[in-house]
Amino acid sequence: MIAYALLGGPQDCWPANIKQIFQAAKEKNDLIIGVDRGSLLLTEMGVMPDLAIGDFDSLHLAEKNEIEAKVTDIRYSNPVKDFTDTELMVRAALNDYRVAGLKIFGATGGRLDHFLANLYLVFAADIRRSAEKIVLLDKQNVLQFYLPGKHRIVAKKGYSYFGVAALGAVKDLNIRGARYSLKNYSSPYPCIFTSNEFLPGQPYFNLSFTSGLIALIFAKDIDRYYNLDEKKS
Amino acid sequence: MIAYALLGGPQDCWPANIKQIFQAAKEKNDLIIGVDRGSLLLTEMGVMPDLAIGDFDSLHLAEKNEIEAKVTDIRYSNPVKDFTDTELMVRAALNDYRVAGLKIFGATGGRLDHFLANLYLVFAADIRRSAEKIVLLDKQNVLQFYLPGKHRIVAKKGYSYFGVAALGAVKDLNIRGARYSLKNYSSPYPCIFTSNEFLPGQPYFNLSFTSGLIALIFAKDIDRYYNLDEKKS
Repeated sequence: MIAYALLGGPQDCWPANIKQIFQAAKEKNDLIIGVDRGSLLLTEMGVMPDLAIGDFDSLHLAEKNEIEAKVTDIRYSNPVKDFTDTELMVRAALNDYRVAGLKIFGATGGRLDHFLANLYLVFAADIRRSAEKIVLLDKQNVLQFYLPGKHRIVAKKGYSYFGVAALGAVKDLNIRGARYSLKNYSSPYPCIFTSNEFLPGQPYFNLSFTSGLIALIFAKDIDRYYNLDEKKS
Repeated sequence: MIAYALLGGPQDCWPANIKQIFQAAKEKNDLIIGVDRGSLLLTEMGVMPDLAIGDFDSLHLAEKNEIEAKVTDIRYSNPVKDFTDTELMVRAALNDYRVAGLKIFGATGGRLDHFLANLYLVFAADIRRSAEKIVLLDKQNVLQFYLPGKHRIVAKKGYSYFGVAALGAVKDLNIRGARYSLKNYSSPYPCIFTSNEFLPGQPYFNLSFTSGLIALIFAKDIDRYYNLDEKKS
């Protein structure tokens, strides 16, 4: 079972087809999770979450009542909290529901402290070992986490670029078989190699490193280039 | 002299009054910098950059010609490059123009590999020592960098929350005099403490740490809460 979670990040950063994504997931009986305001946003899409997490303080009473009436598993977080709602959600999905994968939407855009908290939650020891199950998605990025080892990274249709980010210290980072390669790179600090590309006719590259935590970002340009294309035509 | 730089990040993340900000900076004879597409966007606001950096490949020929005719200091970057345009810009501002401060707009939103590159550029040794001069701004965040030491952080009008992010390993991190305090916290990994608040009647708090690099994020909620307020009223 895969989990699809919606957080409260700004809607203009979501993929355009998010409703279809969640409806298809619901039909396949995958786990649907709403985090705080994300629960309400899911119900507005006609997708009732299986699990709702949050303090729900930002919701109108009628909205809160609807969530409470219809969602089977509701977990209330403490507004003055040691853990973010997203951390609670990730732990519930991984530990209680034992999902094979966790796709998180609404984790980007808006407040940067929220985004960095979503990005850094993989450093919690119990989440870290399952980091490779977690994916953050928005309208122009797919961010996957990788643990030390050797990985074959396969191209994702529609994403022209990828970036390799070491979120902390990294040792012996190698990128082989991509447009820009990297050999035995180590850094005591975070670093990123942006705008790399797959080679023509080779829809994969090899990533390896011996310690650290990598965020691999599949990215595409949108919006602003539409304007440019109009000007060019 | 302060520098105001505009990068090519999506316009819907910019502060609403960005035109006024750049026009006021121009009138004060502060340094105006456009990075790649940011140069064109500045001219569209009626603000001619003093310095333009980029490969300008994404611009229409007429647009490129206009930039070249009117901007005094143009620096061409190599599209297949070791350094990002933003890194070149930061070095030019700090080392060549010796600015006292550098306010960067258009660094957030859109592609996450671009955002992380903008965030991580302070880890370059020559930029790091001037990290405290650099600020990233968008419509709901002001992100400042801090080097080890003791800092008194003053509240920023209109920003209800702040987050303290250690971008890499951190030692002896202390937050004193804020709603949530922290004492002698050390971590080998990045971490963030989000949604902290200033205390009533005390518009500052004390931040200290002995090693690492801190991003302090002043944040505010916008957009989505306007809708909620409408529903509540």
